[in-house]
Amino acid sequence: MNSLGKRFTFTSFGESHGLAIGGVLDGVPAGISIDFSMISQALLERRGGCFTSTHGVSPRALQEPDEIEWLSGVLDGKTLGTPIAFIIRNKHAQSADYDYLKHTYRPGHADFTYQAKYGIRDWRGGGRASARETAARVVAGTIALQLLHDQGITIQTQLTQIGYETNPDKFEELLARTKANGESIGGIIACDIEGLPIGVGEPIFDKLQSHLAFAIMSINACKGFDYGTGFDQVHLLGSESNQISGGISGGISDGSPIHFRCVFKPTPSISKAQSCLNEDGTPNTIQIKGRHDTCVAIRALPVVRAMTALVLMDMHEQGLWETNKD
Amino acid sequence: MNSLGKRFTFTSFGESHGLAIGGVLDGVPAGISIDFSMISQALLERRGGCFTSTHGVSPRALQEPDEIEWLSGVLDGKTLGTPIAFIIRNKHAQSADYDYLKHTYRPGHADFTYQAKYGIRDWRGGGRASARETAARVVAGTIALQLLHDQGITIQTQLTQIGYETNPDKFEELLARTKANGESIGGIIACDIEGLPIGVGEPIFDKLQSHLAFAIMSINACKGFDYGTGFDQVHLLGSESNQISGGISGGISDGSPIHFRCVFKPTPSISKAQSCLNEDGTPNTIQIKGRHDTCVAIRALPVVRAMTALVLMDMHEQGLWETNKD
Amino acid sequence: MNSLGKRFTFTSFGESHGLAIGGVLDGVPAGISIDFSMISQALLERRGGCFTSTHGVSPRALQEPDEIEWLSGVLDGKTLGTPIAFIIRNKHAQSADYDYLKHTYRPGHADFTYQAKYGIRDWRGGGRASARETAARVVAGTIALQLLHDQGITIQTQLTQIGYETNPDKFEELLARTKANGESIGGIIACDIEGLPIGVGEPIFDKLQSHLAFAIMSINACKGFDYGTGFDQVHLLGSESNQISGGISGGISDGSPIHFRCVFKPTPSISKAQSCLNEDGTPNTIQIKGRHDTCVAIRALPVVRAMTALVLMDMHEQGLWETNKD
Amino acid sequence: MNSLGKRFTFTSFGESHGLAIGGVLDGVPAGISIDFSMISQALLERRGGCFTSTHGVSPRALQEPDEIEWLSGVLDGKTLGTPIAFIIRNKHAQSADYDYLKHTYRPGHADFTYQAKYGIRDWRGGGRASARETAARVVAGTIALQLLHDQGITIQTQLTQIGYETNPDKFEELLARTKANGESIGGIIACDIEGLPIGVGEPIFDKLQSHLAFAIMSINACKGFDYGTGFDQVHLLGSESNQISGGISGGISDGSPIHFRCVFKPTPSISKAQSCLNEDGTPNTIQIKGRHDTCVAIRALPVVRAMTALVLMDMHEQGLWETNKD
Repeated sequence: MNSLGKRFTFTSFGESHGLAIGGVLDGVPAGISIDFSMISQALLERRGGCFTSTHGVSPRALQEPDEIEWLSGVLDGKTLGTPIAFIIRNKHAQSADYDYLKHTYRPGHADFTYQAKYGIRDWRGGGRASARETAARVVAGTIALQLLHDQGITIQTQLTQIGYETNPDKFEELLARTKANGESIGGIIACDIEGLPIGVGEPIFDKLQSHLAFAIMSINACKGFDYGTGFDQVHLLGSESNQISGGISGGISDGSPIHFRCVFKPTPSISKAQSCLNEDGTPNTIQIKGRHDTCVAIRALPVVRAMTALVLMDMHEQGLWETNKD
Repeated sequence: MNSLGKRFTFTSFGESHGLAIGGVLDGVPAGISIDFSMISQALLERRGGCFTSTHGVSPRALQEPDEIEWLSGVLDGKTLGTPIAFIIRNKHAQSADYDYLKHTYRPGHADFTYQAKYGIRDWRGGGRASARETAARVVAGTIALQLLHDQGITIQTQLTQIGYETNPDKFEELLARTKANGESIGGIIACDIEGLPIGVGEPIFDKLQSHLAFAIMSINACKGFDYGTGFDQVHLLGSESNQISGGISGGISDGSPIHFRCVFKPTPSISKAQSCLNEDGTPNTIQIKGRHDTCVAIRALPVVRAMTALVLMDMHEQGLWETNKD
Repeated sequence: MNSLGKRFTFTSFGESHGLAIGGVLDGVPAGISIDFSMISQALLERRGGCFTSTHGVSPRALQEPDEIEWLSGVLDGKTLGTPIAFIIRNKHAQSADYDYLKHTYRPGHADFTYQAKYGIRDWRGGGRASARETAARVVAGTIALQLLHDQGITIQTQLTQIGYETNPDKFEELLARTKANGESIGGIIACDIEGLPIGVGEPIFDKLQSHLAFAIMSINACKGFDYGTGFDQVHLLGSESNQISGGISGGISDGSPIHFRCVFKPTPSISKAQSCLNEDGTPNTIQIKGRHDTCVAIRALPVVRAMTALVLMDMHEQGLWETNKD
Repeated sequence: MNSLGKRFTFTSFGESHGLAIGGVLDGVPAGISIDFSMISQALLERRGGCFTSTHGVSPRALQEPDEIEWLSGVLDGKTLGTPIAFIIRNKHAQSADYDYLKHTYRPGHADFTYQAKYGIRDWRGGGRASARETAARVVAGTIALQLLHDQGITIQTQLTQIGYETNPDKFEELLARTKANGESIGGIIACDIEGLPIGVGEPIFDKLQSHLAFAIMSINACKGFDYGTGFDQVHLLGSESNQISGGISGGISDGSPIHFRCVFKPTPSISKAQSCLNEDGTPNTIQIKGRHDTCVAIRALPVVRAMTALVLMDMHEQGLWETNKD
């Protein structure tokens, strides 16, 4: 439920306002010198610190500290081949800020389904459902990225659309306007994988695109995934489609670059007043406090890379990269 | 690799021109009277026999026999709770028809990646990569559908777009024109799940949408998946998005209908002459013999339902439907 | 439930008196020429045909035909890298012979627990619980053995004890006497694995001995497993124990031969009259018809090798053989 | 590799002299009040504190602190249904004590295989291979035990044999004598499960005994497992064996108590001087410092209960307890 992968396995834990969030990454080869700066950089990006615009992300997110405590699996900076456990403590958990949410279901959040499924929930900042959990994914995924880089494989992500805007030069203006209205807005991320050898993936149920979709769809606020020409294939004729390579054929990588897209809904937490329901079913009006991300897709950029890397490394450790198996 | 699910497990086997295709469905409760007519009907639909238009699918497909031989797991028409194995023999395998493909890679097909990965392939009609394999999925998936119906859950699929055409009344005309040009065309399928209780799915990596995406992306020619408002979420503002339910929140079903879409590329096999590559890298021109589907999405309608049902039943048997777990 | 392994996966199906028993072996590399005679030989041994004594096994077993029908995964005698499905039809299923068992629980058999768990069972010759299912394991396991032999690894089994007798020369006499009394008797099988490289297995939960024990304990009538000095370790002092290698240390193979033992209870089906219970709880006296194995351990010899080979190949395909993972 | 279970999943991490050992337990129902005193009691027993004799275990072990830090999954003492992460810091790690082991392979330990497999190891007190890791198993397993108790199921363990001694009254004397000789000795643990309902386990590969054996064989120093009459079945006749219930039939619990045994080798760390090999292959003589357990089986008693409980709860959450599945 909270683990991804069979042989390169990431287990995630922690509530956003509990003692800590963290994870266990199992299956990392022994003797690797972890690139800690690469991890810090990815965490900074997840906090929004790498985006030119200050309109896209919450200033509070930028200040949020992400100090990693490495608990196991590393000796003198080198991996031991044993599980790597790490935690990030939730230092500035001001639970009192959230008291007004204790008995209310925030619109667009998972408050209701969690309550319905578990009969209990950590109402402080979303608890387990908080996007803060993705920080642990970024830590583990960046280690996976490092291992892929060592094999000459790169994974790049970029924001290609916000609202109806597809010109990056105009993103800042749109974000500023959206923020001024107390609103948030959706976004589309494109991901490009280069250097992946021929033969990654297996026919039928272990198709490369199936594993990628599973991992990407597990990211908070993600509503869709497609690869290659994706949904635009509906417009193509066979003779046109046959000339295009999506980098995957029959579930198996063909050696050419792989391109996929994923869409993220607008941040559900907005400053605008919204009508909602309380636990007891009575209607309520809510105004989410604090300063919010205008476009959560911005902070999802390193998360998409992390999930992609975790999936590719797990397929690698499972032997799903093998060609000519005789 | 060829199995889907942990506790309601479907294992698929068979090459399109081997002795038979078939499957093993493990985890079906004991004492169920299988609805064999429901299975025949779904197989007929997979062959295209339920579509008003004769332009969308190959007449040959319609004649293709799908006689199921039940090998185990059923006694006097009732399930034993043991694995249900079944086969469909490949009666009219005219391998000679395919000799001209022995050393050629068909455009848009998985011939190249299979050869590269395995160093060998059954070149007769695509072998393991043939969409014929989906017949086994339909047999197993229809048993899953029956079990879901017994719980009041329905899964409906419909073709919502072909090319740029979104008006079903005009599909036939577009298909006829496409066929006349020796072409094929892409399509979008919409799937609606109704009656699913609250609480199906788990946070983080066992999200309902992740499992659905994994299964749907494994269908031949599928290039994308989204749910709820999907890719259109990019256009929404937070206040708009928060008022929409995609039927899933935080990875957990919320009790309302679930809507998802998937896109299928045009059938790569077209009668038009196409340039391609031989195994030895030399260029070639190929004209695929036989009569082809103009729009493979038509025949994918029951396959999408089957995969959806298999995933939901596996999540059910895994206990991922449970609410209030105390 | 009926599948073993994650990457070299064997799925078993079939009831002893259904249409057929069989299996699907997934994960076999492409391009292998299967040694069919090696499989026939192992099946003959499973039927008891290789044992000098005719007292140990049922003559009927020897006549039982084991004709394999290969359904998929093989083209011109070579593996395709796709799932290998096969069946053995249950030709001489004389169900009428079993009518007297329809409402009775045979002592020492799984009739009661199957009925209790599934509310239905195939009462003809034990149905799914019949040792006939092990024929499918032998077919798949022998393919695994062939792959191991290609890597210089051998797996040998021998019967080391029957009753209190540990001198093989005296087995025949003891078996004859036991049979004459309408009885059956237990046995111990020793298995020796040679040529396994250093590094097979992983610490904690993927220990080599854990995987071996799981597979061996799944064989019908097996009641115990130990390796190296096994239960005799209770008698040793640390200084003595430290000088012995069981071939496995910390869950990882150390490159020396691996020795394990497993014990099989006496065949529960004996010709002697026995008291038993009917489904309705009323007492009954039963005399099992037909001719029975005096010592089922004899026929388990190739099954133990098969299960050992399946586990080792799965660990291999999972990458659990890797050393120095950097 | 370091995770056990599919739906009630325990992930273990940590080196004996790293920052901490710990674990993540995923799948615990929400709303449970954890019995922390039950956990402390089990940890005390694992340290040897519950054994009458002071000869059996190392006094140092008794002092070893086991303070648990709960990182996630619990709010106000109640489980949230989210993963429960916990750590036990390695406070008194005097690594300097172990310098003399840096380049030497201790007899009977996994030093050599770890070095061979990973090309690196934490040589301080065995690192990952240290039995200290079992403390994390006991924490998680005791939560599983609590959940089983709530269902009326009890798991008891007792030491039934040390060396040739089967009379518990004489264990103390034998332990004292063994210790005085600078030696250690093996032991056999018996485990009794009571209250388990009918129908736990599945035919073929998910047999209850297979899951139990897998988990028990994963405990450090365990060399064998049997259930019911176990290895003594070799001596029985069919008519005798048929009258005995081992609590499991055909891989499925029959509702009667389940009895199994496991054997533990003598502690490899003894004060007696022993010859050993250095990493470079040169011979060496080693005298392990510190005070050692005379019989490690004593401290394994709560570990056997913990592993049994983890396996039973995972089978429960997987739905492998279900009866009459229609």
